[in-house]
Amino acid sequence: MDNDDFRRGKPTNHKVFGKDIVVLAGDALLAFGFEHLAISTVGVKPGRIVRAIGELAKSIGAEGLVAGLVVDINSEGLTDVGLDHLEFIHVHKTAALLEAVVVLGAILEGGCDEDVERLRKFARYIGILFQVVDDILDVTKSSKELRKTAGKDLFADKVTYPKLIGIEKSKEFAEKLRSDSLELLQVFDSEKAAPLIALANCIAYKQN
Amino acid sequence: MDNDDFRRGKPTNHKVFGKDIVVLAGDALLAFGFEHLAISTVGVKPGRIVRAIGELAKSIGAEGLVAGLVVDINSEGLTDVGLDHLEFIHVHKTAALLEAVVVLGAILEGGCDEDVERLRKFARYIGILFQVVDDILDVTKSSKELRKTAGKDLFADKVTYPKLIGIEKSKEFAEKLRSDSLELLQVFDSEKAAPLIALANCIAYKQN
Repeated sequence: MDNDDFRRGKPTNHKVFGKDIVVLAGDALLAFGFEHLAISTVGVKPGRIVRAIGELAKSIGAEGLVAGLVVDINSEGLTDVGLDHLEFIHVHKTAALLEAVVVLGAILEGGCDEDVERLRKFARYIGILFQVVDDILDVTKSSKELRKTAGKDLFADKVTYPKLIGIEKSKEFAEKLRSDSLELLQVFDSEKAAPLIALANCIAYKQN
Repeated sequence: MDNDDFRRGKPTNHKVFGKDIVVLAGDALLAFGFEHLAISTVGVKPGRIVRAIGELAKSIGAEGLVAGLVVDINSEGLTDVGLDHLEFIHVHKTAALLEAVVVLGAILEGGCDEDVERLRKFARYIGILFQVVDDILDVTKSSKELRKTAGKDLFADKVTYPKLIGIEKSKEFAEKLRSDSLELLQVFDSEKAAPLIALANCIAYKQN
């Protein structure tokens, strides 16, 4: 969607296979997510699988990822974008899908509603964190270090956290999101929570 | 995907909203199909909903619609495309989704496996029928009558039934598909089958 020529140091799919095939690959993968959930989930009550599928679908559609991307696209070049607007974009564009990924585990494992909502909040924090860190890297790293095109947000006239509140405040915000997200996990068994703790730290300290 | 400028007499969405928004709208609608099935299906055992979702997802992905479209795109300009190849395209590109639509009703209503497979065959026939009729209309009707661009398949160097077996044999094939599909419905209560009979006839006799 960002039309970037490189991703993780390799040419992006639309550069290699063309736009039509890439759109179709996206559709196939999107459908496969639901197929996999429906066909390959074993040892889980069907009612929970249906709930998980509803949750995943909602996170993708017009109330989730797509909403964030559409507002993001329509915000390019705007001069009056505030923090609320930017947060709406990231909560939907990035956090919604992370939310689904985390919450699905809780639903399928039979977690209570309180646990599900706590994990949803955790995922939302690390989703926003992902974007804040990404925005920071875009202005502080070279294309080679990022293994994708650096300075792309500036070039595309996109609103970012560094642009709105500066690099230092963006870094402080990232650290707050990291610690708030980890605090939410403290009620859980630390061994079970370990992968989520690692995920939060991995996002906070990613370098590209 | 066919990049047509008009659909049902109106400018296509990508002409009005641009490619990015159109791809996202497709993703949102795709996800919404699963959301609707998962959240709004009432009075059906969850196990049946899960089966229906698996069926729908499979019909869209790399073994369904997308497979048909990819082969279709990669076949443009080829000179050695035979009937089997063409049928593969249409069974996947057009029939798979119709199959899912018809079969989902049977699954959700508690139909036995034999009924489900009979309806699957019916849907496959009318799916191929849809494409044969579309191919015929593309060469026999004007753009105004079709309310989309006529002669587009010829222009795009696409393989079609008229090109492979001629107009007359294409019309005979269409009639055979129509009658074979209706024959499959004869075991069902005629009142319950009425919408499917109407669907087959509607496809067989469509004018644009």
